[in-house]
Amino acid sequence: MALMTARQYIDSLRELNFDLYLLGEKIDDWVDHPIIRPSINAVAMTYKLAHEERTHELATTRSKLTDEPVSVFNSLFTSTQDLVRKVKLQRELGQRTGCCFQRCVGMDAINAVFSTTYEIDWKHGTEYHQRFKAWLKNVQEQDLCIQGAMTDVKGDRGLSPGQQADPDMYVHIKERNDDGIILRGAKAHQTGTTNSHEMLVMPTLRIREGEEQYAVTCAVPTDAEGIRLIYGRQPCDLRKLEGSDIDVGNYCFGGQEVLTIFDDVFVPWERVFMAGEADFSIALVERFASYHRQSYGGCKAGIGDVLIGAAASMAEYNGVAKAAHIREKIAEMIHLAETIHACGLACSHEGKQMPAGNYQADVLMANVCKHNVTRFPYELIRLAEDIAGGLLVTLPSEKDFKHLEIGKDLDKYFKAAEHVPTEHRVRMLTLIHSMAFGTTAPSYRAESMHGAGSPQAQKIMIHRQTDMEHKKQLARTLAGIDPREDITD
Amino acid sequence: MALMTARQYIDSLRELNFDLYLLGEKIDDWVDHPIIRPSINAVAMTYKLAHEERTHELATTRSKLTDEPVSVFNSLFTSTQDLVRKVKLQRELGQRTGCCFQRCVGMDAINAVFSTTYEIDWKHGTEYHQRFKAWLKNVQEQDLCIQGAMTDVKGDRGLSPGQQADPDMYVHIKERNDDGIILRGAKAHQTGTTNSHEMLVMPTLRIREGEEQYAVTCAVPTDAEGIRLIYGRQPCDLRKLEGSDIDVGNYCFGGQEVLTIFDDVFVPWERVFMAGEADFSIALVERFASYHRQSYGGCKAGIGDVLIGAAASMAEYNGVAKAAHIREKIAEMIHLAETIHACGLACSHEGKQMPAGNYQADVLMANVCKHNVTRFPYELIRLAEDIAGGLLVTLPSEKDFKHLEIGKDLDKYFKAAEHVPTEHRVRMLTLIHSMAFGTTAPSYRAESMHGAGSPQAQKIMIHRQTDMEHKKQLARTLAGIDPREDITD
Amino acid sequence: MALMTARQYIDSLRELNFDLYLLGEKIDDWVDHPIIRPSINAVAMTYKLAHEERTHELATTRSKLTDEPVSVFNSLFTSTQDLVRKVKLQRELGQRTGCCFQRCVGMDAINAVFSTTYEIDWKHGTEYHQRFKAWLKNVQEQDLCIQGAMTDVKGDRGLSPGQQADPDMYVHIKERNDDGIILRGAKAHQTGTTNSHEMLVMPTLRIREGEEQYAVTCAVPTDAEGIRLIYGRQPCDLRKLEGSDIDVGNYCFGGQEVLTIFDDVFVPWERVFMAGEADFSIALVERFASYHRQSYGGCKAGIGDVLIGAAASMAEYNGVAKAAHIREKIAEMIHLAETIHACGLACSHEGKQMPAGNYQADVLMANVCKHNVTRFPYELIRLAEDIAGGLLVTLPSEKDFKHLEIGKDLDKYFKAAEHVPTEHRVRMLTLIHSMAFGTTAPSYRAESMHGAGSPQAQKIMIHRQTDMEHKKQLARTLAGIDPREDITD
Amino acid sequence: MALMTARQYIDSLRELNFDLYLLGEKIDDWVDHPIIRPSINAVAMTYKLAHEERTHELATTRSKLTDEPVSVFNSLFTSTQDLVRKVKLQRELGQRTGCCFQRCVGMDAINAVFSTTYEIDWKHGTEYHQRFKAWLKNVQEQDLCIQGAMTDVKGDRGLSPGQQADPDMYVHIKERNDDGIILRGAKAHQTGTTNSHEMLVMPTLRIREGEEQYAVTCAVPTDAEGIRLIYGRQPCDLRKLEGSDIDVGNYCFGGQEVLTIFDDVFVPWERVFMAGEADFSIALVERFASYHRQSYGGCKAGIGDVLIGAAASMAEYNGVAKAAHIREKIAEMIHLAETIHACGLACSHEGKQMPAGNYQADVLMANVCKHNVTRFPYELIRLAEDIAGGLLVTLPSEKDFKHLEIGKDLDKYFKAAEHVPTEHRVRMLTLIHSMAFGTTAPSYRAESMHGAGSPQAQKIMIHRQTDMEHKKQLARTLAGIDPREDITD
Repeated sequence: MALMTARQYIDSLRELNFDLYLLGEKIDDWVDHPIIRPSINAVAMTYKLAHEERTHELATTRSKLTDEPVSVFNSLFTSTQDLVRKVKLQRELGQRTGCCFQRCVGMDAINAVFSTTYEIDWKHGTEYHQRFKAWLKNVQEQDLCIQGAMTDVKGDRGLSPGQQADPDMYVHIKERNDDGIILRGAKAHQTGTTNSHEMLVMPTLRIREGEEQYAVTCAVPTDAEGIRLIYGRQPCDLRKLEGSDIDVGNYCFGGQEVLTIFDDVFVPWERVFMAGEADFSIALVERFASYHRQSYGGCKAGIGDVLIGAAASMAEYNGVAKAAHIREKIAEMIHLAETIHACGLACSHEGKQMPAGNYQADVLMANVCKHNVTRFPYELIRLAEDIAGGLLVTLPSEKDFKHLEIGKDLDKYFKAAEHVPTEHRVRMLTLIHSMAFGTTAPSYRAESMHGAGSPQAQKIMIHRQTDMEHKKQLARTLAGIDPREDITD
Repeated sequence: MALMTARQYIDSLRELNFDLYLLGEKIDDWVDHPIIRPSINAVAMTYKLAHEERTHELATTRSKLTDEPVSVFNSLFTSTQDLVRKVKLQRELGQRTGCCFQRCVGMDAINAVFSTTYEIDWKHGTEYHQRFKAWLKNVQEQDLCIQGAMTDVKGDRGLSPGQQADPDMYVHIKERNDDGIILRGAKAHQTGTTNSHEMLVMPTLRIREGEEQYAVTCAVPTDAEGIRLIYGRQPCDLRKLEGSDIDVGNYCFGGQEVLTIFDDVFVPWERVFMAGEADFSIALVERFASYHRQSYGGCKAGIGDVLIGAAASMAEYNGVAKAAHIREKIAEMIHLAETIHACGLACSHEGKQMPAGNYQADVLMANVCKHNVTRFPYELIRLAEDIAGGLLVTLPSEKDFKHLEIGKDLDKYFKAAEHVPTEHRVRMLTLIHSMAFGTTAPSYRAESMHGAGSPQAQKIMIHRQTDMEHKKQLARTLAGIDPREDITD
Repeated sequence: MALMTARQYIDSLRELNFDLYLLGEKIDDWVDHPIIRPSINAVAMTYKLAHEERTHELATTRSKLTDEPVSVFNSLFTSTQDLVRKVKLQRELGQRTGCCFQRCVGMDAINAVFSTTYEIDWKHGTEYHQRFKAWLKNVQEQDLCIQGAMTDVKGDRGLSPGQQADPDMYVHIKERNDDGIILRGAKAHQTGTTNSHEMLVMPTLRIREGEEQYAVTCAVPTDAEGIRLIYGRQPCDLRKLEGSDIDVGNYCFGGQEVLTIFDDVFVPWERVFMAGEADFSIALVERFASYHRQSYGGCKAGIGDVLIGAAASMAEYNGVAKAAHIREKIAEMIHLAETIHACGLACSHEGKQMPAGNYQADVLMANVCKHNVTRFPYELIRLAEDIAGGLLVTLPSEKDFKHLEIGKDLDKYFKAAEHVPTEHRVRMLTLIHSMAFGTTAPSYRAESMHGAGSPQAQKIMIHRQTDMEHKKQLARTLAGIDPREDITD
Repeated sequence: MALMTARQYIDSLRELNFDLYLLGEKIDDWVDHPIIRPSINAVAMTYKLAHEERTHELATTRSKLTDEPVSVFNSLFTSTQDLVRKVKLQRELGQRTGCCFQRCVGMDAINAVFSTTYEIDWKHGTEYHQRFKAWLKNVQEQDLCIQGAMTDVKGDRGLSPGQQADPDMYVHIKERNDDGIILRGAKAHQTGTTNSHEMLVMPTLRIREGEEQYAVTCAVPTDAEGIRLIYGRQPCDLRKLEGSDIDVGNYCFGGQEVLTIFDDVFVPWERVFMAGEADFSIALVERFASYHRQSYGGCKAGIGDVLIGAAASMAEYNGVAKAAHIREKIAEMIHLAETIHACGLACSHEGKQMPAGNYQADVLMANVCKHNVTRFPYELIRLAEDIAGGLLVTLPSEKDFKHLEIGKDLDKYFKAAEHVPTEHRVRMLTLIHSMAFGTTAPSYRAESMHGAGSPQAQKIMIHRQTDMEHKKQLARTLAGIDPREDITD
């Protein structure tokens, strides 16, 4: 089967049978629901790019499994160049959607599970890797959208999965039988589940001995029996129900998160890729996290490009584009966005081949990349708010602008630079508003902070990935504590 | 007349006859409108504190004009202690409302106009100061809520008022006659106009020769003939229309901004306090700005207290209150909020008496105070987002929590630390959400940036207020370029 | 006796009989030693200001003990205005010396010991307070220079004083007898001991039960039997021995630190102000620390003024004073220096009276003040290095400039803006060099970091001084977890 | 001829005949001069690595011109992998020397001149490229050390070369004749000239029409007739004359800068590679600058490694290695150093081939790399000062430690963690001191700021290298100002 078009992808979603809730109601027409649709559009862009002439090579590759063309999002990274392409594709998509396009989680999960199952099998003599390849082959052939499901709801953060008052705070194997396993628990902050055909369930932390039931990896259709999805509220979500576009800002695109409940979901063995091998849980978590921290070096730079363009436009519209302090601030925004991207590229170029054959981004630098992402987008937003002006949050509504009487007043009084229609100024303001406060702010702010792990998670990895003994030895040698180096040796 | 209670204040607003628009409709029942009411409540808190035992002394003083008790918000600052009390009152109000309580603009305008009219009269032989005192006496006696109206819509920022294609881009005297003047133009980002009885119109920048019609200061009832108010959209405004409280976050309180259009508004001479004295325009602007930059050292510290308390609560609710990195971040938040307050206190204690008799906060430090406010609240928000976790933007709606079936699921799966009901966790998250993304985010973010002037305005004032020659001379003396100081001289 | 002049102070030092070592040699002529003299000059400036017409009122006050004029440095703070004057005096001295003038440690120790001994006596029925007043009266009458001696050498930071392998890692009472006590141990980083007549020894941390011998406070002449002083090396110290002034930069003034060894030093009882009252050790430490953290809001702002003046001068000398980015950076430097000063003023104005009658600066804000000082001077230095240019560290030596042949070359090639002699440019560069890298860099960098406690010490105090329950209650009330406030109540 | 060993390199310098001044004296024995030798050692390390088994491949390559092994420092970059190797080699050298090893300037100049001369010839029909290749071939065969000479002394920064009162403020062609040209002027901050055999002179800014004599590029032996070198003073330089090692800190290695005066220096035509082609001046400057900004992503990360190792060692020696705030700060230091390196790697991997055939690092990212370098090392130093403690600047001298009497005292009282000899603690402190304040501080601070261009130079390039129109178009499309993208198109 050929790669789906955006249209085909959207239509394919209609065949799913979700148990989905939004704003207190069960939603049936979810593909066309105005709150949900923008997030579907954002994923659809990943399909569109596969067919677009300029981006075709960026968005597709040849599958190692099928030797057929395949979406990069469903592919295995077979070289550092594949890792680099991934990050560049993500920047393009960030630029085109201005938000989270949700499909990276699956891509990163696929690669992490691929390399980890290989090593589990090698040590434990299991058959997970073959099963996984078979599953992945089908995913590639169907050009499905896959979601990675890692973060559990976690309960009390001070207790391990098995210590929780309620054993369901982490997804686990409630039962096993000859046919498969029964899953129970819930995953929080699930990006893009409602846009995906399947999800790849993974553990969220190091599972310790005695709690092996929590070490589970498997593939589950998003509309499997027992799966319930509850849609997370987005800032300004109701603006999407107003039937018009300006006040939403980024009208076409958006992110999406749900709570995914596994209410005794059956998973047959051929879809199970880890079932109790607690000793590999942390490897899987760290590999996924590192791939996903790499990802942010692409998408968040791309969203930053939109914000920079919007801020620069506002400066023009206001008539201050040439003010030195404005230019200084725009340069700073570019500098920060490019630093993020540089880190994303560096960890990709410096990736290494795993025993399973696919490539992993450099773990230390991927963490450094994401750690910068927990800071810089906030400063970019702050600078954009500075440049855009207070109107960002004091602008009347689109309905006011369209009002017969006062519309004229607003058009008159919100006019700034000549030749720039007031409406352009309003639209640019609402675009920035959507990124700073509105529907896409979670994509650029909260996700930059918490997606792929909170800042402290990266600090811990940065410590762990650093050869401190080597650094201390360098210092001791130069200090003359260890023998100094004889330069003419 | 005694000081109004909060209830009396709210009732007094019902007597105003506004030409007010919100979301494309003319609003009549605006006092009870769910989008507007929280901002009225926030102002009402300023009235409440005047009657509360613990805060009575903080919120009231004896009028210099009437020798009667008067709200601090309508008072003249007669000492540095008055300036200090102002800032402490503002912190209390920020703590109690968690948002902008809108009444400071009037207080700061009153004091700036008081000192400036005194000096205009002294130089030009006018009678503005007496007029102003008469007006102010009435304001005090009626315990009115006054709004300061400074920021014009400005058109092209690269052009002066008189150079604009449309002369109405700055409020100006369109005509003068024996009875008074006719005002035309519009003021943007007007905080709290819809909650005020009158507004005090002021110019927004230095007026140059030949453009004297733009140098105008006067008092105008908020419901005067020809005044039209158009309400600014707030992020997540529609959540207030859902008829429930949790998802709003800060349900009771909020800020407010409107566009105020002056469509040929007549103002009688006894309410005119500057009419063409362009040479005093910049003095008035800078005095008002300095008072208002001082103000931010109170309110934004108080709102910060709420955010710190909310972040610390979330850490507890999540079970991580004792983690070292969490404690580090909370300490940083306190440090930043207290730095803001320290600057607000310092410029108050170091205030100076003006020729008119009232006190002005130290101008350099007031600008330094506000300049920190353009940075630190953003970092406080960033840290709060870090501590609160991703649930901040992925939480389902209140309606979902109240849903018969899925409500139980949500209650189960969003439970964290034992003994903390899930609902408490949800409420604390939505409170932080309202400050970071929602209805009160403009109060804590955009207003911190642009209120009382954008960052660059402070940088310019910091330069202007610094005795650079003195600093250079200090350096030259120590460097031995100027004669070095003989210590035993 | 009247207040000493700078000359009298310097001469008075000649009568001391130090056991002092510098660069491996015992120093006898230390008052005139070129490495030491600048630090004496800096202290002498505190004496000079007491006699200077413009600064007389700033530098002196009337003693509460003797009702005679007394140096502010030997005075008790009897009001918040005294605290404010202290900080303003410190800024003046920072501006005049461009470095640490060393006498604040004693002033801060005097006030901390005064209030603590009062409370020890009240609880334990001891007579320390009277003894201390008698000692202080003499200090005031003689106009002595007092040094506060707090920081022990500490050994392993992970162990308490009594747990150390060597019991001498903290100064302690080795013996007590009828006449007094025998002190043993060493104090590190002792600012200005070699310029002081006496030192006031204090414990450096909370002393726990069973280790009471470490809870000791007493006054010791700096040249007492058994005291040995070892001078700390300063960056570029040898430039002071070259017999010329330019390369030193700040030629006249400098800081000073020594290691003070107490080799069984006898202290008679009338000079002992705490001897085993471990329960008051932490109070004394925190009071001193808070006074001293307040101090940095004065001196470091003053030194900042010099650096700002020097950077602005360099911009002029290089011909770039009007470049927008230079003006931006200078404004930032001013902003940072004034923020420090604002915090110093705020904690002073907000000081509170202690049971003993003297005033303590607000502890929370004093810590906030110092915590900013651990950051901002580093940024000021960075900006000054940016503005000054690379010549800061590539400039040839003064000897080269005076060389018959190459001197002409240098004069020609290091000429920048017309009308500015090359020598001025060189002098301004070496002044900045001395603050950034050279003899006064410890005063502005390391001391800003570690003086009065390292950053972490302030973070701990900031936590401790904050009423977190109040902040959490504010958040709970606004969130509707605690009952929401009825505004019309 | 084979690649020189470190010993051969050092000996080869003895054959040069410098006109060199240091501290007011003409220096003959400069190779063994204790102030100069460490900087020679640092360069010698580049020779050593070419012979060391582990680093041989990193430090050498096969010449494109001679097909013989050649030092990377004299090589042309023939692929992005060459650019990457360069940055990794620089990190290794930064780690091994803890300072600037000076030889990069030449390498970067070689590559910039190579590609620029190719294009000059193509446009102007000149023969510079062939000449340059001939010269470079010899350099490679002799394994010479080349220095790039760009930065002019500049006079008044507000005036162009031709507008200066003194025409010698920029190096220029004073005369041309059949044999060659006569150079006049001076280059400031010349890194490593005294360690180099030849220098490659380049213009320092865009030369405009009518000032063509300033557009000059040529190769000049460092000891040519008319060349005079005046050594820049380093902080704490005199410590190197004390005859011992501890107080110097980084005893073996150091940086070096000189003022290079061209007093009518004759350069034959075969060594001239640009003589008046003003239209190519800015291309050459920007290419060199971009290569050199890339370089900082290697060396400054390597020096950072030493500082991190030293700070971590100090934490151990003090007994606080496990404190949470210390671990937090060390992680931050690693994060910053790796961000720098990531930027250096990214611009290398993303390099592009030039028409001449060699590769140029990505210009935008190279500028972003360097711009981070103007900030992060300062923060690394600040954190290291925090961790190291105040002893960094209060430590007595090595002579005191070796003093018969007081040496024992010092050894006793500066002992911290058990098992760590006091001397180790002292040595680690002086190493950090040398990087923060002392002989290698210029390598890590001032050079990070000003080397390869000051921060503003990068901001300008960041603007220029950004496709702002593209970013604005992205924003307009998402805002609906330009037609929104139809996702199902």
